[in-house]
Amino acid sequence: MPSPRPINWYPPVILLLVALLVLVFSLLVIEKAGERGGLSVSGEETSQTRYRWSLVTTWPKNFPVLGTSVETFARQVEVMSAGRLVIHVYGANEIVPANGVFDAVSAGSVEMGHAASYYWRGKVPAAQFFTTIPFGMNAQESNGWLFHGGGLELWREVYAPFNLVPYPGGNTGVQMAGWFNRDINSVNDLRGLKMRIPGMAGEIFNRAGGSAVNIPGGELYTALQTGVIDAAEWVGPINDLTFGFPQIARNYYYPGWQEPGSTLEFLINKTAWESLPKDLQSMVEAAMRSMNQDMLDQFTAGNMVALQQIKDRGVNVRRFPDDVIQRFYDISQQVYAEQAAADPLFKKVYESYSEFQERIRAYNDISELDYFKVRDAVDPQ
Amino acid sequence: MPSPRPINWYPPVILLLVALLVLVFSLLVIEKAGERGGLSVSGEETSQTRYRWSLVTTWPKNFPVLGTSVETFARQVEVMSAGRLVIHVYGANEIVPANGVFDAVSAGSVEMGHAASYYWRGKVPAAQFFTTIPFGMNAQESNGWLFHGGGLELWREVYAPFNLVPYPGGNTGVQMAGWFNRDINSVNDLRGLKMRIPGMAGEIFNRAGGSAVNIPGGELYTALQTGVIDAAEWVGPINDLTFGFPQIARNYYYPGWQEPGSTLEFLINKTAWESLPKDLQSMVEAAMRSMNQDMLDQFTAGNMVALQQIKDRGVNVRRFPDDVIQRFYDISQQVYAEQAAADPLFKKVYESYSEFQERIRAYNDISELDYFKVRDAVDPQ
Repeated sequence: MPSPRPINWYPPVILLLVALLVLVFSLLVIEKAGERGGLSVSGEETSQTRYRWSLVTTWPKNFPVLGTSVETFARQVEVMSAGRLVIHVYGANEIVPANGVFDAVSAGSVEMGHAASYYWRGKVPAAQFFTTIPFGMNAQESNGWLFHGGGLELWREVYAPFNLVPYPGGNTGVQMAGWFNRDINSVNDLRGLKMRIPGMAGEIFNRAGGSAVNIPGGELYTALQTGVIDAAEWVGPINDLTFGFPQIARNYYYPGWQEPGSTLEFLINKTAWESLPKDLQSMVEAAMRSMNQDMLDQFTAGNMVALQQIKDRGVNVRRFPDDVIQRFYDISQQVYAEQAAADPLFKKVYESYSEFQERIRAYNDISELDYFKVRDAVDPQ
Repeated sequence: MPSPRPINWYPPVILLLVALLVLVFSLLVIEKAGERGGLSVSGEETSQTRYRWSLVTTWPKNFPVLGTSVETFARQVEVMSAGRLVIHVYGANEIVPANGVFDAVSAGSVEMGHAASYYWRGKVPAAQFFTTIPFGMNAQESNGWLFHGGGLELWREVYAPFNLVPYPGGNTGVQMAGWFNRDINSVNDLRGLKMRIPGMAGEIFNRAGGSAVNIPGGELYTALQTGVIDAAEWVGPINDLTFGFPQIARNYYYPGWQEPGSTLEFLINKTAWESLPKDLQSMVEAAMRSMNQDMLDQFTAGNMVALQQIKDRGVNVRRFPDDVIQRFYDISQQVYAEQAAADPLFKKVYESYSEFQERIRAYNDISELDYFKVRDAVDPQ
């Protein structure tokens, strides 16, 4: 019987260690693969591709509310996506001129824009309804039409030929009628009045006897101060106060017949949009929707404060006489009828918009409007 | 010189293998830690941890608008997070009774809830302002106060002792005053009137001579049909129509003095909220904000249609006489004064709410309200 050989423990230990090493390493590889390639989760696909987008606006960099809200939107998307989608916001004229936003996004030289659809009326008359029209719907009514009344579907149809996907991106609420250095006591006082008032409202103003002029924002202050123009419409109390209007105009008129609830817009290049995975698309959409509300909330809370400051500086806050408003209204209906006759797409959107407006007006007469009246009646200020 | 001993290679190989094993294992641990605790990406934190949350509501499963919107919210979060946060929505009484939602989320037995803050007035009287109060603010005004007027900060303060994070989760818009099988021609007609009308409005109704009763939703139809009650307040046209009120009540009164713009609420367990990484928190917030607007938009677009259907079924849509509304208003001011005297937190929130309301009312008198009036004046329906 040979003497017993002592067992050599080393080889089994090595085998065990190698096996463990392979196991742990495999786990690491599986883990990594899951992260990179699209771990299927509840039928959704995820992806770790990074996107860097540019967004051009029609507002100066950090323009109060309109511009600052877009920066907030971009930050929110970056946080939500943990840096997978970084959107760099450019002010007007930084890389694209204000009036070039639509074309730049359409062509795909930038992925996104923020503007107001009625700026593009020369290109697409029907686009105006997606901002607002004189004597049209207020913010709450517009949102009802856009999101649950067929408005957004029509908007997509109107922008589709331009390779653009539109989305509501904020609302100003009812604006003011503007700043006047003359008193408007009747329709006659409009005669020959030179006013900065853009778009369809300018057309209506012209037909009412006034003279609508187009002056770039940068020259507006001097023009009104020196009497080159007699009046100007801008946004509303917050932005008008920042602009310095109280120093150069006597009267601040209401109501904002010309812009009763202007919806701002996001423009997205369709190809860029479709290149995003579903989860990032959903994040962008939620951030746009959040901003659509948040801008209105900022105006709601801020305009009341700004208006008081405007009053405190001695400005007269005055109401247009009824005959002036009636005149504007009557002309607006002629303008819409003419444009509808000339452009089938304008007509199609106008019909959807008007039908919704008539129905919501009837409902609001017994809800929002009647409640406002009642609240004032029980406790007169 | 002793004969040379052959080198035993085993121990160094084992050492090397152990070292490799430690290294690879460490990598795996770091990886895992990164997922859970914060893998730094572009300064943002991401994580692949999966969360499954339960959300309990005070509405029946798929209750029109109020319940269906919560399902939409949950789906949106799932898509945005690519399945990292899956929220299962439960209708009232499925796992938690409707009146147990606040406590269940507070205790952490579920992570989220959807309800209306005024349901919890017995526990926290100050909570009522975050839904609405009789003669309070409408939807647009409430959103201004909540998001940019200090309202949400106060809400967080009020809910903090309960380990709850609140967030606005929808709005009904101005409601209707309710369904009545009697005619209300003066304050005298309220005497002895048995009405299902909850909360502070019920208290006001009682002091005006009526008799507020609390009837579960499931028994409401029969109670009104058989005359056990004379009147009932529910939500607004969409939900009232679904409920079948047109078959059992003659008169549908307005305006909704008792609920001029009810904000719904999300309740989140604070511990659960803080366990979420930043990107998921941001997604949940954006989805809640989206829903806060979307619900109002659904009501805007749907109530006008439902009201027409209600009229078509022969229901009289009538307005409360001025003296009735004035009576409710005068009593409401007494109720608020009493509750403010009894509860410092109620007083604190009431002061913030009232101050904002007075200022926004003055502004809306020349913006939203005046525009509504002008639009009706130029084109009477």
